[in-house]
Amino acid sequence: MQEKTTRLEYDFLGSLEVASDAYYGIQTKRAAENFPITGYRMHPELIRALALVKKAAARANMACGTLDASCGQAIVKAAEEIIDGRLHEQFLVDPIQGGAGTSANMNANEVIANRALEICGLRKGDYSRISPNNHVNQSQSTNDVFPTATRLAAITLTRRLLQVMRQMCQEFANKAKAFDDVLKIGRTHLQDAVPIRLGQEFAAYQAVFSRDIARIQRSLQSLYAINMGATAIGTGLNASPDYRIEVKNFLIQDTGFPLSLSADLVDATQNTDAYTELSAALKICMINMSKIANDLRLMASGPRAGLNEIMLPPRQPGSSIMPGKINPVMAEVINQTAFQVIGNDQTISLASEAGQFELNVMEPVLVFNLLQSLTIMANAFQTFTKHCLAGITVNRERLEAFVRGNIGIVTALVPVIGYEKASEIAKEALREGHSVRDIVKRRRLITDKLLDHLLDPHHMTEPKKKE
Amino acid sequence: MQEKTTRLEYDFLGSLEVASDAYYGIQTKRAAENFPITGYRMHPELIRALALVKKAAARANMACGTLDASCGQAIVKAAEEIIDGRLHEQFLVDPIQGGAGTSANMNANEVIANRALEICGLRKGDYSRISPNNHVNQSQSTNDVFPTATRLAAITLTRRLLQVMRQMCQEFANKAKAFDDVLKIGRTHLQDAVPIRLGQEFAAYQAVFSRDIARIQRSLQSLYAINMGATAIGTGLNASPDYRIEVKNFLIQDTGFPLSLSADLVDATQNTDAYTELSAALKICMINMSKIANDLRLMASGPRAGLNEIMLPPRQPGSSIMPGKINPVMAEVINQTAFQVIGNDQTISLASEAGQFELNVMEPVLVFNLLQSLTIMANAFQTFTKHCLAGITVNRERLEAFVRGNIGIVTALVPVIGYEKASEIAKEALREGHSVRDIVKRRRLITDKLLDHLLDPHHMTEPKKKE
Amino acid sequence: MQEKTTRLEYDFLGSLEVASDAYYGIQTKRAAENFPITGYRMHPELIRALALVKKAAARANMACGTLDASCGQAIVKAAEEIIDGRLHEQFLVDPIQGGAGTSANMNANEVIANRALEICGLRKGDYSRISPNNHVNQSQSTNDVFPTATRLAAITLTRRLLQVMRQMCQEFANKAKAFDDVLKIGRTHLQDAVPIRLGQEFAAYQAVFSRDIARIQRSLQSLYAINMGATAIGTGLNASPDYRIEVKNFLIQDTGFPLSLSADLVDATQNTDAYTELSAALKICMINMSKIANDLRLMASGPRAGLNEIMLPPRQPGSSIMPGKINPVMAEVINQTAFQVIGNDQTISLASEAGQFELNVMEPVLVFNLLQSLTIMANAFQTFTKHCLAGITVNRERLEAFVRGNIGIVTALVPVIGYEKASEIAKEALREGHSVRDIVKRRRLITDKLLDHLLDPHHMTEPKKKE
Amino acid sequence: MQEKTTRLEYDFLGSLEVASDAYYGIQTKRAAENFPITGYRMHPELIRALALVKKAAARANMACGTLDASCGQAIVKAAEEIIDGRLHEQFLVDPIQGGAGTSANMNANEVIANRALEICGLRKGDYSRISPNNHVNQSQSTNDVFPTATRLAAITLTRRLLQVMRQMCQEFANKAKAFDDVLKIGRTHLQDAVPIRLGQEFAAYQAVFSRDIARIQRSLQSLYAINMGATAIGTGLNASPDYRIEVKNFLIQDTGFPLSLSADLVDATQNTDAYTELSAALKICMINMSKIANDLRLMASGPRAGLNEIMLPPRQPGSSIMPGKINPVMAEVINQTAFQVIGNDQTISLASEAGQFELNVMEPVLVFNLLQSLTIMANAFQTFTKHCLAGITVNRERLEAFVRGNIGIVTALVPVIGYEKASEIAKEALREGHSVRDIVKRRRLITDKLLDHLLDPHHMTEPKKKE
Repeated sequence: MQEKTTRLEYDFLGSLEVASDAYYGIQTKRAAENFPITGYRMHPELIRALALVKKAAARANMACGTLDASCGQAIVKAAEEIIDGRLHEQFLVDPIQGGAGTSANMNANEVIANRALEICGLRKGDYSRISPNNHVNQSQSTNDVFPTATRLAAITLTRRLLQVMRQMCQEFANKAKAFDDVLKIGRTHLQDAVPIRLGQEFAAYQAVFSRDIARIQRSLQSLYAINMGATAIGTGLNASPDYRIEVKNFLIQDTGFPLSLSADLVDATQNTDAYTELSAALKICMINMSKIANDLRLMASGPRAGLNEIMLPPRQPGSSIMPGKINPVMAEVINQTAFQVIGNDQTISLASEAGQFELNVMEPVLVFNLLQSLTIMANAFQTFTKHCLAGITVNRERLEAFVRGNIGIVTALVPVIGYEKASEIAKEALREGHSVRDIVKRRRLITDKLLDHLLDPHHMTEPKKKE
Repeated sequence: MQEKTTRLEYDFLGSLEVASDAYYGIQTKRAAENFPITGYRMHPELIRALALVKKAAARANMACGTLDASCGQAIVKAAEEIIDGRLHEQFLVDPIQGGAGTSANMNANEVIANRALEICGLRKGDYSRISPNNHVNQSQSTNDVFPTATRLAAITLTRRLLQVMRQMCQEFANKAKAFDDVLKIGRTHLQDAVPIRLGQEFAAYQAVFSRDIARIQRSLQSLYAINMGATAIGTGLNASPDYRIEVKNFLIQDTGFPLSLSADLVDATQNTDAYTELSAALKICMINMSKIANDLRLMASGPRAGLNEIMLPPRQPGSSIMPGKINPVMAEVINQTAFQVIGNDQTISLASEAGQFELNVMEPVLVFNLLQSLTIMANAFQTFTKHCLAGITVNRERLEAFVRGNIGIVTALVPVIGYEKASEIAKEALREGHSVRDIVKRRRLITDKLLDHLLDPHHMTEPKKKE
Repeated sequence: MQEKTTRLEYDFLGSLEVASDAYYGIQTKRAAENFPITGYRMHPELIRALALVKKAAARANMACGTLDASCGQAIVKAAEEIIDGRLHEQFLVDPIQGGAGTSANMNANEVIANRALEICGLRKGDYSRISPNNHVNQSQSTNDVFPTATRLAAITLTRRLLQVMRQMCQEFANKAKAFDDVLKIGRTHLQDAVPIRLGQEFAAYQAVFSRDIARIQRSLQSLYAINMGATAIGTGLNASPDYRIEVKNFLIQDTGFPLSLSADLVDATQNTDAYTELSAALKICMINMSKIANDLRLMASGPRAGLNEIMLPPRQPGSSIMPGKINPVMAEVINQTAFQVIGNDQTISLASEAGQFELNVMEPVLVFNLLQSLTIMANAFQTFTKHCLAGITVNRERLEAFVRGNIGIVTALVPVIGYEKASEIAKEALREGHSVRDIVKRRRLITDKLLDHLLDPHHMTEPKKKE
Repeated sequence: MQEKTTRLEYDFLGSLEVASDAYYGIQTKRAAENFPITGYRMHPELIRALALVKKAAARANMACGTLDASCGQAIVKAAEEIIDGRLHEQFLVDPIQGGAGTSANMNANEVIANRALEICGLRKGDYSRISPNNHVNQSQSTNDVFPTATRLAAITLTRRLLQVMRQMCQEFANKAKAFDDVLKIGRTHLQDAVPIRLGQEFAAYQAVFSRDIARIQRSLQSLYAINMGATAIGTGLNASPDYRIEVKNFLIQDTGFPLSLSADLVDATQNTDAYTELSAALKICMINMSKIANDLRLMASGPRAGLNEIMLPPRQPGSSIMPGKINPVMAEVINQTAFQVIGNDQTISLASEAGQFELNVMEPVLVFNLLQSLTIMANAFQTFTKHCLAGITVNRERLEAFVRGNIGIVTALVPVIGYEKASEIAKEALREGHSVRDIVKRRRLITDKLLDHLLDPHHMTEPKKKE
């Protein structure tokens, strides 16, 4: 005789058969049926963060005397397993889900309740003993659990991203130093301008990237304010002030993050500007990086019919049909990551704007995009730094030839001969194909010594000194 | 003695150990190392489409006499396995990848080459016999293979979406009919306006959604033009005109799609407006659906402190803390899908704008977002139609009470008593809490009969008849 | 004794002094005070279109017998003056205004009423004789007037745009022909690929731009369906079916546009997809044009340290400090127009999504952006065509040198010597700086005759012929 | 005999007739002909800021001894006139212009040169005496002038905006206080939740708006770093280090802004992240305000068939056809301003991403949108605060009735009777139309005293106290 392979679970809408060995329960199953949208799973860091919240809440409830120790300890243990990466396959709910994260929260509540029951030697589904709502979710609401878990996950991923960014920034600095003596023609409007040093280019990249790090770092601060204890709408109904303090402290203990309680929990429960702020910082970073990737691709263009000023490390054959072709694939992946992150920021903005009254029910799609942006940026930067940036080399000969042949250096003569005269020389140089130096010499406009001084390209890359 | 578990593969950048049992080869492995970005796999329909292209190309090459039959037949057979859903786990390349899809194409070339070798009784990696480049990729370039495969995948997904949309549209029509006699107060600016019938609301939803179907259907046409035979940059180098015809015809045979060859293959290889056009049609559809979802959520608001005019089918408990709460989760998922699709359109637009010269190398991120939009729209519409739209019911009592108490009906008196007099009545009604009818009666402005006639709410929902 | 310089006007909120000589009235003044947002005026084409609608409505009302002739004729005459460009300074209302266009409509009603009074020899403000609401706005609501006027304005501007685009497309065609024999190296990933002809590039630009024309042309069709007679919410309250027909016919008479009445006026009054559709077509066009502008700027880069393949006509000195510098300013203005139009599309999308129930009250900002997009595209294309595109010239020497030195031509040998052997040659060419031709000759891989045949760059720009 | 009404001016492209009385010159005229795009003029604050820069540069050049005093003083005087609002009509250049602002800079150079010539008693166009390039633009480039002027204009407008925002924030605080005792039903998912106080709602609005002020304030800091002395590409060619210090100090003197010199002028000249950062802060603010505007519109919906919880001050008749209708026009204008600012941010992002090498040539369209966003936000907030926010009143009766009839209050019983039992009560309440209180009483689940305590709505709006 075969054993029963399902158990019957109930909620106030009715009942449903759930696989006997499932740790999730009826509400997870309903949600999985309701939301087969992306086919993806929730971000593993979000699952971990939900468990971190559940663990801290259980400990806080025990500390406040509203949850008995045997039940509470089992909940803590079950949560810890999820934190350690187990049971993640029990989280069925799609990242895009209606209900402001209730399904995600209930998925966590159910998995933890059933695993806790199991730990206590009880059978799964015996919710009279350990209930997803009364015990695992005690003193909580989706509306404080989901935002808090989102923040924990976002903090973890942002810190990881910042670490990668710092290494990348260092690599920009390395290149700035290594290329500091490499002369290069500066370009504005893609037209030849006046000389610069390649090191200055990379120093500028480092400078803007440093500000990106600072911007993201600053946005991180806003994530540290959590709203545990806010419960349904921020008024804290059913959660004691003591519990608030306890749960926050336990979370600090487990994460090491400098968390604090939002000053206004009603505000903290309905507003999502901490996310839009972080996403904007990510977007700005990728706007800057897309420009840098474009510069690199332009400088590496060629090899014969392009600028060919620098070489990016070859990483893979560039074509299935054209032998020997190498493409700037690592820079291209930065551009594409930029486009994804900018698009994600759009989704996040739309979701944020759609909040109503006490809650923003569009948070799931917002969170899905925010965590994705953080993840792909860290991944893209890591592979880009290692496989591209660190290995960039220089075609000095080409760079120097471009500086030598340049007409824009006539600019350095303007303070001496005036803009109009300099224009004439530039026109002649262009028309006749001669060098600026030759024309000035021929016209005997200034002494050779002064000419040499003014046209020294290296001097041109720094402000003129007092004489 | 243990068997060798790797084989050594070569390309013009060097060599790499590949697992002996792997069907993918060196270039796939390089790409997997270069692009660990999203962690997702390519869309299964894109993998299938790549195999469809490879199969058709092999048949065309055989027909043109440039590929010998034994090799060609093995390639066809290997491709068919992938079309049937096998070997998909061998496609390691991340959807966001540098290189304009070269890695995706080479992944397909390698898997098919090795599986074909196996079919022929040869060992994997023996590319002198069946080569990923010379045989599987013969007469092809990534730059015609990847766009063509993208189109096939997009066509499949768009057709699936349209099918779902037609059912949904029918359901809007059903509701328009079912609610045709239900009076309701019309609202502009969220302020009470003049009466309408609930059926008219749903008919308007059906009308705009029908146009969305037509717009998407129209965009589909642009996808039917493929660029096989364009090879590297559209000039068709290394592919014969005969091959072009053959490969197109074989693709038509296998897919049943009304494919044609682009009139200008240079254009077709560098431009991505067929995708931006489709994505725009998807975006517009979701803008419209987001508005409809908002209307439904507003009409279903309450139950006691909201409009409470209609009831959406309850699908899951709405809160982990508030018992008995039911939320409009299926409508919310429509809004969220809208935000995702609108954000995706942004990414697609950015990627499209970033094309340069003969190619748009940002296609991978573009394709990733386009196929995702198509997929989540179909999924969201299907679950929304079944679990929400079809089951909407009406609170007639409430709807009628709103119409009865309304002041906006004074508008119907304007042609008779003028705008100014009607304004006075409206002001008095608002100030005193009386009904328009009572005030007009008291003031004896018009006969009771005419009043009854003018204020009949049902009459107000249609243009006035000649009298 | 000084004359009274103001008149007192009333509405149901109270009264306000209006300058005696003002044609606008109390509601315009309220709106001007409420909405000092952008400081711009409404688009002149929108003002004209409002007057067109008012004229047609007055004629229709006269035809239906609900407006007496003396009053009606004066309204018609006043409207005609606005159509002719007079009285536009009386339209004070900001393009961004609350109220779904009610202020714009009332501004038109008041100006026309007062001018009509004046025409009849009556004093301004004597609304008992000719009333903005009862007479000028008779059988109308803002909710049919404003959308219809918007469509008329958009049709006019779209047609003007299409005319400019057709000239520009012709200029692309001219260049395609003129440059048909100019060999050029094709580029993918900004890396040298295989040869193409410059004429093929411009033909591809023409091809995609032709599709843009077709897309915009197609979107124009949706604008022809108007909702006059819909009145407040599409139910047609207070407007007779006869009037609907008359007003449409009079509009056709005056504009020559193939207008029709929307099949579902409730739908037509609340949905704005005709605008999002047009805006999407504009956006796609500008995405494509931004790519083309980028190509032109790249090809014109230099003159000495860039590609320098083509020359754009010099239009102005490029720098206040660098003499002789010329920048691709006309192409840059295309890019900037693209960014503006893409941003406008975003605003339009957001406004469209924000419709609720029977109306989209965000139409004013939507219309402001849509009409701006149409206007700046026409302006930018016109100046770009005349001042840039038409005058592009070619640096044949440079283009040919790039083709000669190119390594990518090794691709043409693949069908004969295979991908691997070809890769070796490419690598050697790159490493040693030799030409592909020399290496193949030295290695005696194929006959000189075959080599000459295969490496003929002109042959490479067309698909291989049968042999 | 008639006087000559034009003068002939020259640049290195040729010559052009300029109206004799024009202060602008040949380059302005070329630019006006090249860029007839929007038809708008440059923002007056940008024109002022250009003059501020020119004045400071002239003083710095005089201090450095490179500009003689008579010429320099005349330039200073001419610039001051523009700062005072004169001569603005001489700035013909369209805000959307190719050339990275060169035309705007040259327009300023020319107007100032000619006005300075006039001041000196010389004739306009006598550039040998006072030259737009050699004297007015001395030690400068468009690439330091235009970014610096943009920053000055943006600082001025941001400060003005912040002042308006602080007043608006105070008004939110006033409302929070005034409505602190007004009970209201909280809503999540537009569904009834648990009680809150209306004052808490407004306090939450104040809280998020305070963060917006802080975010914008923080972004302001990035604007204080200017790049004067960077000249063409940030290397400072033709500008002495002394000049840098002087020009910065003179600007501080004239503006009172805490300006500093960018640490890396190459970076400062090519990167535009200070603008994208500010624009993102503006966007986030408008996302938040759009949500608040939506809340207000919902709470004010009705009057009879909506929530009707609050009343917004009536500002204008709401309809041309429906008498007595009042619409939330001031809130709608906030939504529309939000959509405009979000769209502008998109344009700004695209322009920022399009920088290349040493310069972002797309700055004109970026600056146009940034200054517009700052302006319309200040305008919209000012009118909204005065004409809407300050005058909001409350419908206490309605608000209380909603709280009384609410089912969500059953949540307060959960800690005592458990989630499942509470669910049953909620279901019965909904089904039978009874109150939660009555059902609990009838079922005698808890004592009346405890029931009264638990269901006191006021208690529910604060966290439960220890007992």
